[in-house]
Amino acid sequence: MPVYADPIDGLAVPAGLLQAWTAGLVERLDTPSDIAVDVADVLVASDRRGIASHGTARLPNYVALIRAGVMDPAARPVVDGGRPALTRFDARNGWGHHAGRVAVDSAIAAARELGMAASTVRNTNHYGIAGWYALRAARDGMIGISLSNTSPLVAPTRARQPLIGTNPIGLAAPAGRFGAFCLDMATSTIPRGRIEVAARRGEILPVGWAIDAEGRPATTPEAALAGALHPLGGEEGTGGYKGYGLALAVDLLTGVLAGSAFGPNILGLFSTEGPSDLGQTFIVIDPAAVDAPGAFEGRLVGYLEQLVAAPTVPGAPGRVLVPGEPEAAAERRSDDRGIVLDAVHAERLVELGKRYDIPFPATSPG
Amino acid sequence: MPVYADPIDGLAVPAGLLQAWTAGLVERLDTPSDIAVDVADVLVASDRRGIASHGTARLPNYVALIRAGVMDPAARPVVDGGRPALTRFDARNGWGHHAGRVAVDSAIAAARELGMAASTVRNTNHYGIAGWYALRAARDGMIGISLSNTSPLVAPTRARQPLIGTNPIGLAAPAGRFGAFCLDMATSTIPRGRIEVAARRGEILPVGWAIDAEGRPATTPEAALAGALHPLGGEEGTGGYKGYGLALAVDLLTGVLAGSAFGPNILGLFSTEGPSDLGQTFIVIDPAAVDAPGAFEGRLVGYLEQLVAAPTVPGAPGRVLVPGEPEAAAERRSDDRGIVLDAVHAERLVELGKRYDIPFPATSPG
Repeated sequence: MPVYADPIDGLAVPAGLLQAWTAGLVERLDTPSDIAVDVADVLVASDRRGIASHGTARLPNYVALIRAGVMDPAARPVVDGGRPALTRFDARNGWGHHAGRVAVDSAIAAARELGMAASTVRNTNHYGIAGWYALRAARDGMIGISLSNTSPLVAPTRARQPLIGTNPIGLAAPAGRFGAFCLDMATSTIPRGRIEVAARRGEILPVGWAIDAEGRPATTPEAALAGALHPLGGEEGTGGYKGYGLALAVDLLTGVLAGSAFGPNILGLFSTEGPSDLGQTFIVIDPAAVDAPGAFEGRLVGYLEQLVAAPTVPGAPGRVLVPGEPEAAAERRSDDRGIVLDAVHAERLVELGKRYDIPFPATSPG
Repeated sequence: MPVYADPIDGLAVPAGLLQAWTAGLVERLDTPSDIAVDVADVLVASDRRGIASHGTARLPNYVALIRAGVMDPAARPVVDGGRPALTRFDARNGWGHHAGRVAVDSAIAAARELGMAASTVRNTNHYGIAGWYALRAARDGMIGISLSNTSPLVAPTRARQPLIGTNPIGLAAPAGRFGAFCLDMATSTIPRGRIEVAARRGEILPVGWAIDAEGRPATTPEAALAGALHPLGGEEGTGGYKGYGLALAVDLLTGVLAGSAFGPNILGLFSTEGPSDLGQTFIVIDPAAVDAPGAFEGRLVGYLEQLVAAPTVPGAPGRVLVPGEPEAAAERRSDDRGIVLDAVHAERLVELGKRYDIPFPATSPG
């Protein structure tokens, strides 16, 4: 996921205070307190990791879903079929963050016993950053994979309309001095938010990012916003059909497997027309099932050491990175200086605090 | 995988005859007959599917490995640790096709009981097309995932040297009238073979395919062959770090998990300097564990129907495709007219037949 630079003239708030406030706010929305803690954990983790698009900035969207009656803030996921290594949960249209936490914890416990296990969740809502759930497995020494389908924003190769989601893939593993390996990526070339940034800045778009409403390469952000994103790889000639295939594979392993909505049948992002009915799947592998404890992690660290030491291309902005390193660096900044919110983001949270009578914590210049 | 057009002035041989001949040849290399049948099945399946680069054209390479004493044609894989849903096999440096078939069958059987299971194989050799093993699970109504690491040909984002493989991902599922969904892709933008074709044709390369030995965009095939391939997504600005992350994730789930070689430590493709020591992993999910039999497949077919009916971009060479459709069309052509080999390919097989006293079957103009 793109790590956003801290905003200029931002407002800093300590992560702990933001987390407590978020949990309190979510409780005021008729959410049981243990569920509210899960929601706050995931949203604030996103902010801490510099992924400002997927954290507390989305609280107004969740509030709108609950107020429109299309999401149930008190619902608890229930087991809905399965065998020992594959469990289906019905999230009963509750918070995706809580259902995801329950589902990944179930897969972690089963993988500890069986070597590998998965949970698939139907009838759920947006769960924030895919990587959070994968990292939960990595924290326990395991490989975690986290997948979700999303609203259709991407045009399959050759199609002129958005019919599939940006369907993210999160994959994490423990990695010694690197903390964790954490790949957390949408299967589109770039996220829609990147086009919105280009629009604000008046930028011209490169071929391979998006198509316009007629299916031609979109050269302006406005044309792209009226069209569709390209899957990873861009046009057909540069391998876009691979990104299309990956996005479809994620949908097949989430919405289609779980029995939720998929592809063009998913409503628009945070639409209040009806329940989101997303599908999410968590796969956990315990490397200790096939080798001495720590052997996998030791090999991985050795591998990453070789990569970060590699000679770089002319003009490279720095050394070779390990997936998740920019997010981990943002975490350290957030813990040193507080989470820095931009003015609009902060203002919206202050407003929500007033509306639900839970004052937003004091901020300092970021 | 790229489906190659049938060669002009090619020679056609019926798939059944090619398969029997291949099995016979492999037996002459001191391979037990049941193992030889697996090898022939996978190699000829590749030829039938139009993936001429990965089929019987590679027989001379395998022969070279065996004659150099760096691959054991008679070795049988053995179980080397695991828990009920995750088994590690040691291929004991035998044929990758056989070890892969044994490992995926083991995962299919375990998934039938547990809902999901995986096998990881260490100390193995090139297994041909990733999709074959995934399709074996799809044939049994399940979702199959097949992963392999490979020789380093791809430069991680920012690196100027090839340090990671083109590490393929195969994912298949049963899909009614579409036969199967079968994504079978390298995690590089294009395969090295595509650069070789461009060299023969004197083509200029687009940015995003490869870098030269100094790490600059390679504009000629010669420069690219001396440099490294880009991961899927191309340069950093068009999402190449995602393809890099995916290639690394495949290595983490294969070589690093299994305890084989990985990344820059893997020898060159078909090098006779030592054992290949590749890692391969097979993950199988049984959708019937969480839903009525056939429900998953019915949903998937409905989804694919929506995609293939979508309006297309101007100048599209045809309708939207389902991953695996070009390969399935090549299969039908091969079954109608025989498998069409180019002259060099046919000549090499005829030569091998002479050397091992097993005459290559009669061919007809293709």
